[in-house]
Amino acid sequence: MRTILVVGDGMADRPLKELGGRTPLEAAETPNLDSVAKAGVCGLMDIIAPGRPPGSDVANLALLGYDPIESYRGRGALEAMGAGIEIRRGDVAFRGNFSYVDDRGVVLDRRAGRVEGSQFKGHLSDVRLSGHPDVEVTVLPTLGHRLAVVLRGEKLSWRVSDTDPHRDGAKVLTSQPLEKTEEAERTAAIVNKLTATLKNMLRDDPVNRERIKAGLPPANAILLRGAGEPPTVTPMTDLYGVRGACVSATPTVRGACVAVGFEIFDALGATGGVDTDTISKARKAEEVLPNHDIVYLHVKGTDNASHDGKAQLKMSVIEKIDDMVGHLIEHADLDETYIAVTADHTTSVTARDHRGDPVPVAISGPEVRSDAVASFSERACAYGGLGRIRGKELMPTLLDLLGKMPLYGS
Amino acid sequence: MRTILVVGDGMADRPLKELGGRTPLEAAETPNLDSVAKAGVCGLMDIIAPGRPPGSDVANLALLGYDPIESYRGRGALEAMGAGIEIRRGDVAFRGNFSYVDDRGVVLDRRAGRVEGSQFKGHLSDVRLSGHPDVEVTVLPTLGHRLAVVLRGEKLSWRVSDTDPHRDGAKVLTSQPLEKTEEAERTAAIVNKLTATLKNMLRDDPVNRERIKAGLPPANAILLRGAGEPPTVTPMTDLYGVRGACVSATPTVRGACVAVGFEIFDALGATGGVDTDTISKARKAEEVLPNHDIVYLHVKGTDNASHDGKAQLKMSVIEKIDDMVGHLIEHADLDETYIAVTADHTTSVTARDHRGDPVPVAISGPEVRSDAVASFSERACAYGGLGRIRGKELMPTLLDLLGKMPLYGS
Repeated sequence: MRTILVVGDGMADRPLKELGGRTPLEAAETPNLDSVAKAGVCGLMDIIAPGRPPGSDVANLALLGYDPIESYRGRGALEAMGAGIEIRRGDVAFRGNFSYVDDRGVVLDRRAGRVEGSQFKGHLSDVRLSGHPDVEVTVLPTLGHRLAVVLRGEKLSWRVSDTDPHRDGAKVLTSQPLEKTEEAERTAAIVNKLTATLKNMLRDDPVNRERIKAGLPPANAILLRGAGEPPTVTPMTDLYGVRGACVSATPTVRGACVAVGFEIFDALGATGGVDTDTISKARKAEEVLPNHDIVYLHVKGTDNASHDGKAQLKMSVIEKIDDMVGHLIEHADLDETYIAVTADHTTSVTARDHRGDPVPVAISGPEVRSDAVASFSERACAYGGLGRIRGKELMPTLLDLLGKMPLYGS
Repeated sequence: MRTILVVGDGMADRPLKELGGRTPLEAAETPNLDSVAKAGVCGLMDIIAPGRPPGSDVANLALLGYDPIESYRGRGALEAMGAGIEIRRGDVAFRGNFSYVDDRGVVLDRRAGRVEGSQFKGHLSDVRLSGHPDVEVTVLPTLGHRLAVVLRGEKLSWRVSDTDPHRDGAKVLTSQPLEKTEEAERTAAIVNKLTATLKNMLRDDPVNRERIKAGLPPANAILLRGAGEPPTVTPMTDLYGVRGACVSATPTVRGACVAVGFEIFDALGATGGVDTDTISKARKAEEVLPNHDIVYLHVKGTDNASHDGKAQLKMSVIEKIDDMVGHLIEHADLDETYIAVTADHTTSVTARDHRGDPVPVAISGPEVRSDAVASFSERACAYGGLGRIRGKELMPTLLDLLGKMPLYGS
């Protein structure tokens, strides 16, 4: 017995005026999602708790079965782990941007003209912080203008604020401790020293000299955000002896899966955007399923469309997810396979942001207690046999169907 | 976007024989409550947890979004805050009665012939406790025979028992510490000393000399109950930047709202009884709505009728609440306003007391995921799209609809 858990990022929504009071899930053509609901048991799920909007990092830890409040330690380390960087307990990691800043420290372009950061690979490999000789710094370009920064040393804390002002036209921020501890104060000081040090290193970088000659904005500063430590979780492999696989193009999701001991797989044509190849992702999931107990199959595009306020685009990505689920149903041995479908949170097309409404969930497979729900949507699943559960309760429910949950008591 | 939360005190009930097996909510004519249910999303709500009957103090803290077990610190301070007395952390407050006690300490009339306590205003302003010169005592008559007592000083505890025996014919009780701490032992001793001191002061009070002359029972003792500290809550204004208003005539409800940072408003003709003017309350709520995110609109009468065991009276107060909701619906901008309706607990007309059955809840407004429920009652709402939630989860759900709940994670 094996399970494929399909997660549509931000796929749940509220009724939209432009869709005649339907949600995108209700308005889209989803025969395959509906068939999972029809064959299976459905419900509503609060990722954290009713009315509490989760970030993507928190939401995926919850769907992987961990308490999102207890286990969460910031996004930076998840992202870095998702990018393949080895992070140890005690390290503090950040997400970063190569950016273009003027002499007064005002951010002119947070992405430095969407510079390809890989050109700087190796240029920033020997960062030394005066006054902090014990701190080891890793700067690693990831995708496009993005990078990861990892600090390693004694007495570091993830409870420090961003240097990224999160908009053009504002000054680079000074990192502040977010709690009154020696570690947080020391780490904020290190971050500010690092910002100045990298600025000096980038000023004379040959890539930037070329960019200026070519009339392009130089990548003369690095903005940091989302400080984080590895989440405080015991990997699922250790807890339950479960072999998990992750098919996702999204660094945070990959990082959360790494943290809980899942193997990460790439699918050709998986972009993390609305243009992703969901059939390729289905094929990859089918390919790796025989060697795993559970495959975490995540599609990001529904969230992107929601943050852009585009209901029709969201519907079209939902329909691509539906095609993907159709492929899974067609190719799976349904006597041996559970298929579960859900979202990691509600993202409102109207608000263009995450909201705390519960998400629908459906589980089909050999031994589920199927109910009368016949379509997969926020409202239909409210009448399902699962009732209303919490995000962290889904994974135990799925593993228990596989007989992988240990007895508590005797 | 704004929200009006209508709370009918003790409005939920059990099926009653005298109503042909219907609950008062089912038997009453409630076209407006039903229209909220029909347009909205419904559910059942356990104020604390299934089968746990809450007091009014606890119930209102839960409806305001706070954990009722963690935040509760007794009723006394809530009542005093609701009466407009400024309470600081560390103070201990009590509810009290002017009462008539014989020489042996037996209570002859807990309300001393429903004496008007305001006559004593100022008479008890200089209370000095021998042996406790550091403790500041405030005695403030409130409504009728009722008063509030506040102790201020070092090392006080709210974990002490009542001196009020809660019935005539019993002896005034000695306050006992309810936990083994120095603070509780010290506070119980102070309360007992205070009881003796007030008895001495009242014996020679000119008001009492006049009452005895007139053949009225003298108010010669003060009975204390419901010791409490301010609840351990961070005001909602600080937590979420929410501006809240409270329209209620009930001291405990007003106190809970003060504790969480709401502004308190009086409505003309609002009595806290079955004769209250609910249309006046609706008008006050409408008046203050534009300057607030949420208005907490509370009607007490349903609870009074329940405690008196009067089903028909309870139905008539329910119908007055229905008229109030009709007024709200008629005058609100329904594209911009959420209306939620619930009860703070079940009060059984048969038992004449609070019970732990869940209460119905309905939320209507622009972006709710409406369900198929078409009437507002304990049984109809059990089939709603909210499923079964906890009391403390309602406020986050309402604030999230307004986009006021912060993201957890990133």
